[in-house]
Amino acid sequence: MIEEFAEIPLPALSINALMEHSRNLCLPKMRNAVSRLASPMDTVAAYHFGWVNRHGRPAAGDGGKMLRPALAVLAARAIGVNPLTGILGGVSVELVHNFSLLHDDFMDGDETRRHRATAWTVFSPTLAILTGDALLNVASDVLVGNSADDISPHNEVRALKLLTSATQKMIDGQVRDLSFELRDRISVEECLEMVSEKTGALLACSSAISAALAGADDDTVNALGSYGHHLGLAFQAVDDLLGIWGDPESTGKSRWGDLRRRKKSLPVCAALAENCKYSRQLADVLSDACGSGNEDEKQLEQRAFLIEAAGGRAWTYHEARRQHAKALEALDEVAMPDAVREYFTMLARFAIERNK
Amino acid sequence: MIEEFAEIPLPALSINALMEHSRNLCLPKMRNAVSRLASPMDTVAAYHFGWVNRHGRPAAGDGGKMLRPALAVLAARAIGVNPLTGILGGVSVELVHNFSLLHDDFMDGDETRRHRATAWTVFSPTLAILTGDALLNVASDVLVGNSADDISPHNEVRALKLLTSATQKMIDGQVRDLSFELRDRISVEECLEMVSEKTGALLACSSAISAALAGADDDTVNALGSYGHHLGLAFQAVDDLLGIWGDPESTGKSRWGDLRRRKKSLPVCAALAENCKYSRQLADVLSDACGSGNEDEKQLEQRAFLIEAAGGRAWTYHEARRQHAKALEALDEVAMPDAVREYFTMLARFAIERNK
Repeated sequence: MIEEFAEIPLPALSINALMEHSRNLCLPKMRNAVSRLASPMDTVAAYHFGWVNRHGRPAAGDGGKMLRPALAVLAARAIGVNPLTGILGGVSVELVHNFSLLHDDFMDGDETRRHRATAWTVFSPTLAILTGDALLNVASDVLVGNSADDISPHNEVRALKLLTSATQKMIDGQVRDLSFELRDRISVEECLEMVSEKTGALLACSSAISAALAGADDDTVNALGSYGHHLGLAFQAVDDLLGIWGDPESTGKSRWGDLRRRKKSLPVCAALAENCKYSRQLADVLSDACGSGNEDEKQLEQRAFLIEAAGGRAWTYHEARRQHAKALEALDEVAMPDAVREYFTMLARFAIERNK
Repeated sequence: MIEEFAEIPLPALSINALMEHSRNLCLPKMRNAVSRLASPMDTVAAYHFGWVNRHGRPAAGDGGKMLRPALAVLAARAIGVNPLTGILGGVSVELVHNFSLLHDDFMDGDETRRHRATAWTVFSPTLAILTGDALLNVASDVLVGNSADDISPHNEVRALKLLTSATQKMIDGQVRDLSFELRDRISVEECLEMVSEKTGALLACSSAISAALAGADDDTVNALGSYGHHLGLAFQAVDDLLGIWGDPESTGKSRWGDLRRRKKSLPVCAALAENCKYSRQLADVLSDACGSGNEDEKQLEQRAFLIEAAGGRAWTYHEARRQHAKALEALDEVAMPDAVREYFTMLARFAIERNK
């Protein structure tokens, strides 16, 4: 039995303290969900989460920020309900998020995540795919069937509908993102739409799911979802900036990875949308398939320069701030304790001010 | 609004008529679920289901037997409930089944299914994986949120738990099956356990899910599930026989495919479990990695001969019949109209007497 939130003090106002707080709440159920997978999928998942090394021995790896569970736990706290709704919601969205990472890393050919070799390179593409499948499936399973804990089936179905709808959008966004690779030019609107599906939808769900699970009214669920949606767009805009101008030491991603694979990220789309010499030069460079994937450091550095000179960096920076403002606006529609609101505000600030 | 079952006559007692009956009931919702996937996943799924050709133009392809929806529709009919429960259950399990086919075909390197090129060869591995992901996700989505149609959230959660548990077993079974490829010898018990997970679990779910959705008591749900479980084992045993001795013209699979990839199917495991000269010869042939995958027709034919001579064919034939008997035994525990029982009996007979 889990105590009421009133009995669990909020940690000191810091990102790390919040992440640790929600991680501590969610990890037991996450580990339990993973332990139910048949061997060796349990090891593949535990490796991916940073709990064990490739040999299955305990490790203190980087399991990611766990931003989504933090949102779900905070939202449950915002409306003062049973903390379990925050945990169940948080675990479900984190499982869905990691299903997508396992599959996307393989599809995108990414070899590094969170400073470690990706699961498909350590185990096999097949095991990474199957483990992803299993995580997606167990995400639904975790979310429902908790009526013994005073969660009504009606609200479980409501929460599950949010989860399946967000998952669908996330998959649609990945498909759209991949289709962008085959096209020379993507409008900023198309790119934002893709980001909204691929990243925004699950963050919206993370912020709304525990409220739905707890039986909050639709307005509250929607406002929390809107906060998460805009947070997601701000987050991705900053991610795209870090993908080009971030320090690989901090981000844990390979240097120039996004540029090397000619990712149509927000800065690139915004730069191409300009009508200036740098923008045209960038378009020429990107449409020249010759030597693709084998560009040297200097060529990639020049590409980053062109994106910045054409205004792509500044546009994305401002877009992140615009989305940040919209997130806070949505938050204003939900009544909640000041201490919880401060956390939501801090998270939104973190989304745009982080360096990893 | 769907009519009561009383208003929908059962077709004449034939497998084809039953399949057509349940296909007609389920197809509109299947097509609707597929139409919700983003392009080009909708085309990939429609191609996989045989509705369109590779260019997205309507085709009359082979969409498979759709055995699982037939079971779900029959079970709803058995207990005389709202036909919609049969349709929702049937569509969900068929979506999960096809998620697994899309992923497994890629993992197993299978290039042909239902007489056509597999989706990953026609489109791409990435699109086949993402479309599979989307079908798994939409399967949960379809199953819940139908309270407007008099299905209670409590029963939806019950049905969803059956679905997620069966899906988990199915994925576990695929992992186990793949792990068998790396081992020289698999006991018959291990093989049956794998089949029970990989095939039995979803067929059990197909037979039980609409009863759960309709609020039938646990005994009824379990007995129907047990029927489906044994039907699944019988079905797979016959599948394994057809994989070796079936006519590729009928089965739609490549000739000697199972033997070429040294699949540890039931006939092979049963043959290896014997202690006779044929069994030892078979073990020698299979443990010789030399020339693996490049065997000529004659070598594969000899392998089939050894399996049969060691008793693997006869054992599997009898196992199929044993499972068939157990399926009918389970069926006896459920009260239902004679006409529906005849159909279940016919389906069980079909499982062991089919040639494709």
